[in-house]
Amino acid sequence: MSENKGLLITFEGCDGSGKSTQASLFIGRLQQAGFPVTPLRDPGANAISERIRDILLDNKHGEMSAWTELLLYEAARAQMVTQQIVPALGENRIVVCDRFYDSTTAYQGHGRLLDLHLVSAANRIGSCGLVPDLTFIIDVEPQLIRKRVMRRQGGPDRIESAGLEFQERVRRGYLAIAAEEPLRALIIPGDRSIAEIQSHIWQLFVTRFQRFLQHGAL
Amino acid sequence: MSENKGLLITFEGCDGSGKSTQASLFIGRLQQAGFPVTPLRDPGANAISERIRDILLDNKHGEMSAWTELLLYEAARAQMVTQQIVPALGENRIVVCDRFYDSTTAYQGHGRLLDLHLVSAANRIGSCGLVPDLTFIIDVEPQLIRKRVMRRQGGPDRIESAGLEFQERVRRGYLAIAAEEPLRALIIPGDRSIAEIQSHIWQLFVTRFQRFLQHGAL
Repeated sequence: MSENKGLLITFEGCDGSGKSTQASLFIGRLQQAGFPVTPLRDPGANAISERIRDILLDNKHGEMSAWTELLLYEAARAQMVTQQIVPALGENRIVVCDRFYDSTTAYQGHGRLLDLHLVSAANRIGSCGLVPDLTFIIDVEPQLIRKRVMRRQGGPDRIESAGLEFQERVRRGYLAIAAEEPLRALIIPGDRSIAEIQSHIWQLFVTRFQRFLQHGAL
Repeated sequence: MSENKGLLITFEGCDGSGKSTQASLFIGRLQQAGFPVTPLRDPGANAISERIRDILLDNKHGEMSAWTELLLYEAARAQMVTQQIVPALGENRIVVCDRFYDSTTAYQGHGRLLDLHLVSAANRIGSCGLVPDLTFIIDVEPQLIRKRVMRRQGGPDRIESAGLEFQERVRRGYLAIAAEEPLRALIIPGDRSIAEIQSHIWQLFVTRFQRFLQHGAL
């Protein structure tokens, strides 16, 4: 963040990896410690983005093109950045986001095999140039994820039904992001207990942002 | 068109310029002459794009960011290109589209003053690289347009209510497009009678695509 205000922390990973659980636990711990937190999920978090999310997750829309999907994610994101993230960072808050543009790189770029340069250009537009201060990628074997998803809900939604091969590509996409930006995007092994993973994330967070947490600024 | 199949003809201009009237007359004349025509409007033309259009034109969404607006237009467009335009061109049809990516350049780029390079990148994604074979820009003074819009409907919608200064910028945007691509984008003076404008457009069209019209190929 060039403004040196607030923090943007994002949680990433395949569906069923446990990232939403970890994001919730992380948010709870921040709140307990007295920090001003803004929890968000992408796509979503405001009326416009939720309407876009409804189109994206509608099982009826099997004919949706991969580029339409990508652009809808970016549109929802741009609204969230403008309406919620930028104001919250300006108030020195810690914004914790369940998914952000790395999801688009992993799912639409690597998963749906769209041109990664165009995906990157779309990400810059959708995020309005904003880059997370830190990103936790919860990494779990797609085989294990599959079991979790089937257990969690009756049937998979439109995106989750794309199959195991797709999930493998998405996972490799996340690993590629972490390899390209090792200081921002951290791989968190997700096959341990919820408590162990949470403690791992919290430790990394406090180590990295010691100054912010002590003085309310980076 | 690199495939040398079908034609993509787009109609552009400010709201109230008469472009939709002219597109309809043009389509009717093509049909009368026995050509296979696919009439489309952007945004719209299929279930997904119409849902996106509903979000865009909803008066409740005054908080929509300019980038969200742009990305929603591109998403609706990508779906129309994939689902309708590309298949129709493959069947050697004449696709006539009421608005296409020049609208985004004029409205979001010039009108809402977004970075024109990013708008251009978004347009390439949204149009999946497709470029119209010919574009008619119906050019009318914003003052005259204002009178027409107020006459046509009770109150202006969210986009039309942005004011005269905005419309002036949009018009200058269209003139800039025509100046940059004089072979593709033709300015049609829109202050004459409907019949005169229609005849002007038809004449330009048959002159340019004589070979296609006679032999069904360019």
